[in-house]
Amino acid sequence: MFLAELHERLSKLIDQVGGIEHIKGIGVGAPNGNYYTGNIEYAPNLRWRGIIPLAQMLQDLFGLPAVLTNDANAAALGEMTYGSARGMKDFITITLGTGVGSGIVANGQLIYGHDGFAGELGHIIVVPGGRLHPGTGMHGSLEAYASATGVTNTALELLESRPDEPSVLRNHKKEEIDSKVIYEAAIKGDKLAIEIYEFTGRILGEALANFVMFSSPEAIVLFGGLTQAGDLIMRPVRHHMEKNLLPIFQNKVKLVFSELRESDAAILGASAMAWEMKD
Amino acid sequence: MFLAELHERLSKLIDQVGGIEHIKGIGVGAPNGNYYTGNIEYAPNLRWRGIIPLAQMLQDLFGLPAVLTNDANAAALGEMTYGSARGMKDFITITLGTGVGSGIVANGQLIYGHDGFAGELGHIIVVPGGRLHPGTGMHGSLEAYASATGVTNTALELLESRPDEPSVLRNHKKEEIDSKVIYEAAIKGDKLAIEIYEFTGRILGEALANFVMFSSPEAIVLFGGLTQAGDLIMRPVRHHMEKNLLPIFQNKVKLVFSELRESDAAILGASAMAWEMKD
Repeated sequence: MFLAELHERLSKLIDQVGGIEHIKGIGVGAPNGNYYTGNIEYAPNLRWRGIIPLAQMLQDLFGLPAVLTNDANAAALGEMTYGSARGMKDFITITLGTGVGSGIVANGQLIYGHDGFAGELGHIIVVPGGRLHPGTGMHGSLEAYASATGVTNTALELLESRPDEPSVLRNHKKEEIDSKVIYEAAIKGDKLAIEIYEFTGRILGEALANFVMFSSPEAIVLFGGLTQAGDLIMRPVRHHMEKNLLPIFQNKVKLVFSELRESDAAILGASAMAWEMKD
Repeated sequence: MFLAELHERLSKLIDQVGGIEHIKGIGVGAPNGNYYTGNIEYAPNLRWRGIIPLAQMLQDLFGLPAVLTNDANAAALGEMTYGSARGMKDFITITLGTGVGSGIVANGQLIYGHDGFAGELGHIIVVPGGRLHPGTGMHGSLEAYASATGVTNTALELLESRPDEPSVLRNHKKEEIDSKVIYEAAIKGDKLAIEIYEFTGRILGEALANFVMFSSPEAIVLFGGLTQAGDLIMRPVRHHMEKNLLPIFQNKVKLVFSELRESDAAILGASAMAWEMKD
């Protein structure tokens, strides 16, 4: 169903650019996409269950070679080809959106690991025994704090644990509180809202310090909803990252927001991957 | 002084194997050795201070090309060429000795990072706000728990915090308690000594889970003094590593003790590095 519609729409586009003989291949960035197998494997956030051999299905449908990776890796490739990481051989991209995704590049190559699943930095435990991440059952993973849901949960926890502290967030119903509401409160100077970013930035900064001591990237590129908070989040992230680094790593890592939109980066990266396919 | 003696001794060995024309180059694994620069840079545990251009000095002294990396990276190369990681493209080696060192291989290459300092897994913070690591001033780094000193400190802390619990370790003076004493107590069934390994294994296992979700290695190879405790340490490490992994990573990583002696691995790895030098 999805594939039939994709085929119809893409075929029109392909005809517009002069026909299929001008296309080298198809590159896809998809949640839980595995580069080695070409499958989407057990994606918890998609309606498809189990293992979907998407690369093979596309290959059969279009008669073109197809290559697949997960969306976070595709975004990293996009960043390397067109974004802030142009010309870099060692960097990490982190997407702070509904979830926390990541792509790791070292020696100029994406790190896939032995099975294609490397780079699950959102699931790394940053607060042992910490907040439950309902999707995985893990406690204290980065995603439980630095995702949109994580930030909202931090707001709810702070509001509840400090009933006497005033905050414009209290003018909202619990279920109305989201990243947007928190951001608007913070730029108006609401102390509790600012502290939500401080807290999130500390957790994320500590995590980034650990990532730096793993692969010593030249840059960490941040994407996604949370980056719209700008300096409110960047300042504490940078402070706590530097504070938790060994001296040899301090004041070296470029910590930047992506210049590309997250979805653009993934699309550009997927296309770059198709160009580089072996014939 | 060191170099003069090294030159004298090595020259004899070189003559014994048929002279310098049979030697392709010199490979060195040294603490804080930087592969990119060929320098030993600010080694806290050596008597040399500042930056020592060792590769260049050896090159001048012997008239042979020389290449340098840190000792943990050299051990990883040794493991890949001769040890448990033969044929693997993605693995991590961790040395649990006086300190905690590490070498990370991904896509068949050592991960050096943009500046040559990647793979400082011993300094990753595993217990935020945890035990002080005096050498670095950091709190809660892996090395503060999973090194020989870390294990001894755990023993001292447990003995002090549970004055009523019997243990044969109490037959020793504080300053006599070390890895050997603890190991001997544990194999005799001393509960507190066994708990020292459980505690150390939990911290290390949690750290390894995070490393797996970073680079998804096929194997993690453990070296060093602590591995002599065998199953006393391996069992809790494995248990807590698996427990903290996302399902897609569970029961896949080979967790093994090195078949090589640590110093052998580093020497073999340094020589392998010399063979692979570009002419």
